Amino acid sequence: MSENKVPYKIYLQENEMPTAWYNMRADMKNKPAPLVNPGTGQPLSAEELTPIFCEELVKQELDETTPLVAIPEEIRNFYKMYRPSPLVRAYCLEEKLKTPAKIYYKFEGNNTSGSHKLNSAIAQAYYAKKQGLKGVTTETGAGQWGTALSMACSYFDLDCKVYMVKVSYEQKPFRREVMRTYGASVVPSPSETTQVGRKILAEHPGTTGSLGCAISEAVEVAVSNPGYRYVLGSVLNQVLLHQSVIGLETKAALDKYGIKPDMIIGCAGGGSNLGGLIAPFMGEKLRGEADYRIIAVEPASCPSFTRGTFAYDFCDTGMICPLAKMYTLGSDFIPSPNHAGGLRFHGMSTTLSQLYHDGYMEAVSVDQTSVFDAAVQFARVEGILPAPESSHAIRVAIDEALKCKETGEEKTIVFGLTGTGYFDLVAYEKYNNGEMTDQIPTDEEIAASIAKLPKIG
Amino acid sequence: MSENKVPYKIYLQENEMPTAWYNMRADMKNKPAPLVNPGTGQPLSAEELTPIFCEELVKQELDETTPLVAIPEEIRNFYKMYRPSPLVRAYCLEEKLKTPAKIYYKFEGNNTSGSHKLNSAIAQAYYAKKQGLKGVTTETGAGQWGTALSMACSYFDLDCKVYMVKVSYEQKPFRREVMRTYGASVVPSPSETTQVGRKILAEHPGTTGSLGCAISEAVEVAVSNPGYRYVLGSVLNQVLLHQSVIGLETKAALDKYGIKPDMIIGCAGGGSNLGGLIAPFMGEKLRGEADYRIIAVEPASCPSFTRGTFAYDFCDTGMICPLAKMYTLGSDFIPSPNHAGGLRFHGMSTTLSQLYHDGYMEAVSVDQTSVFDAAVQFARVEGILPAPESSHAIRVAIDEALKCKETGEEKTIVFGLTGTGYFDLVAYEKYNNGEMTDQIPTDEEIAASIAKLPKIG
Repeated sequence: MSENKVPYKIYLQENEMPTAWYNMRADMKNKPAPLVNPGTGQPLSAEELTPIFCEELVKQELDETTPLVAIPEEIRNFYKMYRPSPLVRAYCLEEKLKTPAKIYYKFEGNNTSGSHKLNSAIAQAYYAKKQGLKGVTTETGAGQWGTALSMACSYFDLDCKVYMVKVSYEQKPFRREVMRTYGASVVPSPSETTQVGRKILAEHPGTTGSLGCAISEAVEVAVSNPGYRYVLGSVLNQVLLHQSVIGLETKAALDKYGIKPDMIIGCAGGGSNLGGLIAPFMGEKLRGEADYRIIAVEPASCPSFTRGTFAYDFCDTGMICPLAKMYTLGSDFIPSPNHAGGLRFHGMSTTLSQLYHDGYMEAVSVDQTSVFDAAVQFARVEGILPAPESSHAIRVAIDEALKCKETGEEKTIVFGLTGTGYFDLVAYEKYNNGEMTDQIPTDEEIAASIAKLPKIG
Repeated sequence: MSENKVPYKIYLQENEMPTAWYNMRADMKNKPAPLVNPGTGQPLSAEELTPIFCEELVKQELDETTPLVAIPEEIRNFYKMYRPSPLVRAYCLEEKLKTPAKIYYKFEGNNTSGSHKLNSAIAQAYYAKKQGLKGVTTETGAGQWGTALSMACSYFDLDCKVYMVKVSYEQKPFRREVMRTYGASVVPSPSETTQVGRKILAEHPGTTGSLGCAISEAVEVAVSNPGYRYVLGSVLNQVLLHQSVIGLETKAALDKYGIKPDMIIGCAGGGSNLGGLIAPFMGEKLRGEADYRIIAVEPASCPSFTRGTFAYDFCDTGMICPLAKMYTLGSDFIPSPNHAGGLRFHGMSTTLSQLYHDGYMEAVSVDQTSVFDAAVQFARVEGILPAPESSHAIRVAIDEALKCKETGEEKTIVFGLTGTGYFDLVAYEKYNNGEMTDQIPTDEEIAASIAKLPKIG
């Protein structure tokens, strides 16, 4: 079929949906460095991980050799409720920009969690159920991951305990209520329900909490309650594996119309979306079958790829989790409070970090106000109100399309639209009122945080 | 294709989308009674309507004979950004209910307005643009219509002035900010920007406004500013015409798999969704080609079909609009403040009223708490968090599926899922906290309101 017949939205048929996830590590010559036990300095074994994580997920976490992992039928059936997600040709945006570039976006926001997070949440809930567990625990900040996990647990009749950073619990009551509607118990963190929570409350009365503290509480509850495990929505290899469904669908949709992209652009926080979107394209690149520009976009307020260092660090600010070798700003680093949405993790997936280190991808950081400029421009012509996170990718896609306008090149740009901004309207209000600002960390701030890295690896 | 191969979601191809809207009135033997000028008691002419409404829309409003109205290409292109909407087979709900019934729902929530309202908003904005107008005015309560119109006006570069009931403007800042993001000016009503607003503010300082007052302001601005017209998101015949795209897609998707529904269920406020969903099915029924049960579901707190009277009444509480012959509770009637979401209009589309009067459809009213029971049950198995409005249809679809379970009948149920509940979480919170109540008007309350009907027709 010729490219000028591409519809506005390419939907795969149900029988064209992926039946296996793709594990990029299988094709990497330089594997990502292993997670390390902070006590021993040695790589973590499966035995050390299984008290915290589900057994099957530990296997997936450590598996560096299997390229394709079959998606269980129960998960595929759930996927069918909200997938395949559309690959959209941004005809209206192209026209508005008057660019010869062809712009496509993979839209993951058409589900109640409002983002791609559901792709991994349902997989993790499934393996927990299969193991005969009673429930899972997790933490959530902005709430996308908590919402996705609540939906997944509700589907499999699993108990779901979400530790929600207290300030978000109070300021984002809508997210909290979606989770409660799906039957999750949502606890403002720090709480009286855990030892670590009580300790923090005693030491810091009146604290509004932090993600690091919420992780600590969720992990404590998981390891101290029989039948519970802890689950996480980003950074981990297992999460990237599940999220590969995004990229596999994208590639299948493009292949259907004989389209070969020149570049693939994704926003990057912990790497769950980016690692999923680029997976099959990166696979071709790793195997030398094709070449693509692959661009990670991160906020200038939390620039782990572009201004961080590649070293072992804690995954949590509370320093209780394993060490991971990654691009990091230091586990002490906290982005400016005026930073909107997610993408606020100090580090980055170990797999993506290794790929970036080895030159397989580029990274660029963008300012918040320019991100919202792009978000509003996109919303007005393409209809969808994007999440702040997704809008980082929109910004760079528009920039690249405008470069094509200058050079006259008809490049094909694919970017990931990870979700909708319906629960981010406080940030949009700031933007609409002209009150949004940028806040870029100084070199000294980053150096101070990196100076505290653990001396391992 | 055999019915057991029906996928979870039936998506039409772009070239299978409707190219014409269907006008039910063309097949009605008893046409809906005309709008009447409250001053003269005579049917309103096109000349009387054109100062308020766009010319082409006035034609559509008055056209009782043309069955098919071509959808202009510009509107079809916009439709392609968020349509075709999926017709979903509710496999998970069926399994949960253990019913032999086959349940389908047409999901109109996958767009930023969060509902079907965009189908008519884009049409009305298009005709305004084509007429060379500068902009349009409207009122909004809960905000779905205002959001949809803002999106449509942004697409066609039209100015959009939304008068938003002051209490909603203050209590629903998220909706307000979506509209502002799409470039609309949103004015809390009553306001100082109109004569009628200033009058009301002088007489009732501190009032939080009403839909009737917002309509009055929007109409005043439209008729007193050259290049502006007033637009409305429900009740009118033109709106039902545009919304027929819902039913036409539904029927095309069912036909593709050889499925003939036994019943079609839709929620009913002013009738925009119901009139659109049932259109082609009602057409077959009117022409004697097929028979279907067609069920309107309304809230027990605002039961115009089931407890109202069929008579001429004002369309607005401010009594400045034309009179329409419809099932009405009286333009004075205001549902209890604890009523959640839309479906709070005192009357009903004249077309649907005539069809109901002539026995072509049934109506049932449902209690709010039972509606939210159904909403949560649906959300937990089908993933989508439904709008309160849509959940009225879910309630009755579940009730009918449970009847099938008792009788063993394998009926095919189709219902309209008009939108998502992301901006209705205050109501969900009340439900989650066990604080939601039902409030059914007494016979005396309804009689008192109906006693004030104008003496015409």
